[in-house]
Amino acid sequence: MNQLKAVGIVVEYNPFHNGHLYQINEAKKMTNADVVIAVMSTSFLQRGEPAIVSKWVRTQMALLNGIDLVVELPYIYSTQKAETFAHGAIAILAELGVDFLNFGSESGNIQAFNHLVSFMSSQKSEFDHLVKRYMKLGYSYPKSTSEAFNQLNLQEETLPLTEPNNILGFHYVKAIDDQKAPIQATTTLRRQAHYHDPTITTNPIASATSIRKTLSDNDSIQIRHVVPKETYQLLTTYKKTYSILHTWDDYFNLLQYKILSTPVEQLRVLYECEEGLEYRVKEKIQTAASFSEWMQLLKTKRYTWTRLQRLATHLLTNTSKVEMEEATATKPSYIRLLGMTKNGQTFINKTKQHRQIPLITKLAKANGIQAKIEERITNVYLSPLKKEQQLAEMKQEYSRPPIMVT
Amino acid sequence: MNQLKAVGIVVEYNPFHNGHLYQINEAKKMTNADVVIAVMSTSFLQRGEPAIVSKWVRTQMALLNGIDLVVELPYIYSTQKAETFAHGAIAILAELGVDFLNFGSESGNIQAFNHLVSFMSSQKSEFDHLVKRYMKLGYSYPKSTSEAFNQLNLQEETLPLTEPNNILGFHYVKAIDDQKAPIQATTTLRRQAHYHDPTITTNPIASATSIRKTLSDNDSIQIRHVVPKETYQLLTTYKKTYSILHTWDDYFNLLQYKILSTPVEQLRVLYECEEGLEYRVKEKIQTAASFSEWMQLLKTKRYTWTRLQRLATHLLTNTSKVEMEEATATKPSYIRLLGMTKNGQTFINKTKQHRQIPLITKLAKANGIQAKIEERITNVYLSPLKKEQQLAEMKQEYSRPPIMVT
Repeated sequence: MNQLKAVGIVVEYNPFHNGHLYQINEAKKMTNADVVIAVMSTSFLQRGEPAIVSKWVRTQMALLNGIDLVVELPYIYSTQKAETFAHGAIAILAELGVDFLNFGSESGNIQAFNHLVSFMSSQKSEFDHLVKRYMKLGYSYPKSTSEAFNQLNLQEETLPLTEPNNILGFHYVKAIDDQKAPIQATTTLRRQAHYHDPTITTNPIASATSIRKTLSDNDSIQIRHVVPKETYQLLTTYKKTYSILHTWDDYFNLLQYKILSTPVEQLRVLYECEEGLEYRVKEKIQTAASFSEWMQLLKTKRYTWTRLQRLATHLLTNTSKVEMEEATATKPSYIRLLGMTKNGQTFINKTKQHRQIPLITKLAKANGIQAKIEERITNVYLSPLKKEQQLAEMKQEYSRPPIMVT
Repeated sequence: MNQLKAVGIVVEYNPFHNGHLYQINEAKKMTNADVVIAVMSTSFLQRGEPAIVSKWVRTQMALLNGIDLVVELPYIYSTQKAETFAHGAIAILAELGVDFLNFGSESGNIQAFNHLVSFMSSQKSEFDHLVKRYMKLGYSYPKSTSEAFNQLNLQEETLPLTEPNNILGFHYVKAIDDQKAPIQATTTLRRQAHYHDPTITTNPIASATSIRKTLSDNDSIQIRHVVPKETYQLLTTYKKTYSILHTWDDYFNLLQYKILSTPVEQLRVLYECEEGLEYRVKEKIQTAASFSEWMQLLKTKRYTWTRLQRLATHLLTNTSKVEMEEATATKPSYIRLLGMTKNGQTFINKTKQHRQIPLITKLAKANGIQAKIEERITNVYLSPLKKEQQLAEMKQEYSRPPIMVT
């Protein structure tokens, strides 16, 4: 008998900030859960970017601020469009046996999500048909989705799906429904207006984007009032130890080499390299002096910035369509534990007999396509570090036990 | 009617030094030729290394010191074992219509080469059989060749094939014989003792190896008495302009990324990646902090240092077995002119009607697999440059006309 109630959340913590802390507290209040479990993206994120610090450092941030258990959201899900991303995250949380899900949203009204999901399942074929039609007209996938919702007279009245966290939330609730997972979804109204806010204000809550922007300007002192002190310390230490906070600029030389040294017919087999994009990425890389210059040259109406950044990620990590298809065709083959508190450990022990997928504590114990991809992308992620540090981190990745915070 | 007599030589000029100047003068004296034509390796060399400066700069060195015409020895030949290297170089010189070949050797006696080649063609099957037998015992290819010669009682009496320039010379003469090319081979006794001499002495002739070693120690002033003044100036300017003289250290990060991001089954299709080497390169790259450390870890009795460096080159340039097989199956599809003197230009004009392969002056006019590979490896070669310079050089490569020295 398992008396501990758990709430799961899906996170990137890039980096962990006061808004995340607020969500954890709200989620606990709302669900009365004893344990908070985070499934956290590993090295590359949904917007197609490297995480600014390693998953280990982000795990520490989480455990020091109210999370009891951190498990990996592996690359095969973490770098996908909302639907696949949500599908993977929910499968992992369901396997871990959470009772609740909580997600931040611009809406804040869980009824709106539930309503939309049930309506959608009755309108699925009509909806899919509309999305396809809009994509044929040259619209991007998110834009086509949004137009399809409009067409079905859904969007305005129920849930504004132009907001990124509403879209993710919708797909979480839909994934729970699709997977028939015994998880009750809850949502927290996001206290900040927009995900993409460019600047930090005096407000103690700021977007992760504005925090990263401030950090990239080498102005880390400016973020002190919008992050927990542990985040500030861990970021400062990471930067001091490794000389970088990972951004696309640190990978551009490798990406450029990859594209220049790979014939188009080999680029074409890589994931998300569709519709002749192999020619376009190759042509544009020859005149781009930086990652952002390349992205500017690449951009068209058809592809969102995020979609192209994800393509760049898969090119960099040499991830093929065949691999991704194979890796996402079945349930995750293992769940990797990154860290836990005493409380999290108790939950893990009590729920042992309910789990069907191995919960592993070391990469050395993993196998299969998911592990093979994750190992490769970890090595790529570590490539901009100084050689001695890179080799040490690569080695540690195999043997490192989960982080314990007591 | 062509009254100009030409002597061809096969060169790397990495960099051009007094020994090369001596050879040019000796070759002219020996053959009484009016024109000296050099077929010069492009970006990567026979020992599996990047050239320290671009082919353009090495072309200038050559034209300012007695060479009348410089054409490319493309990657598909320049990074091969002696036999294939010589086959490609001789095919190009024959097409250009040279009357003589001259090569430096430790022997200095052309009769010894001619004798060995004719003896060899009568003993070919026995020789091949012996080489295979020694390789099965785990010996390297050069060692097996040398043992086979010994076994046939050839080596000591005729031509010491343990000397690198004798081996190359043997393959030049053999290629002329195989291709039935109307070229008379001549050889110049090398005035320096050994190719691999590690240090520069007061002698005005030093090995290219010792010159590169001195340059890598940032001690360029020490090479002034062993190179023509133009070499010294061009090297100094290149270093000042581009901040580097290209060595493997400048490519190690890319090579490591390439190996780490490529599954073994994809490494296996690359040229010279044989007999399970894909596992070995992947394992060893995870603990090597530098190129030389990696090479030390990789080395076994079976593989020479040179063989492994060539493998590293093909891994870096993503050159596959299938591509190399296709590219070397036929005669070169074009010959690219890198530079000429007035004298060289006259020769080119007078021999126009005898050529069967297009002599091109711009890469934009090239096509086929040879051009595709050459374009890719040029881009890889330029990768360590600062971005703006790299992009400018990449662009120039398509449109740059041959260098004219008058």
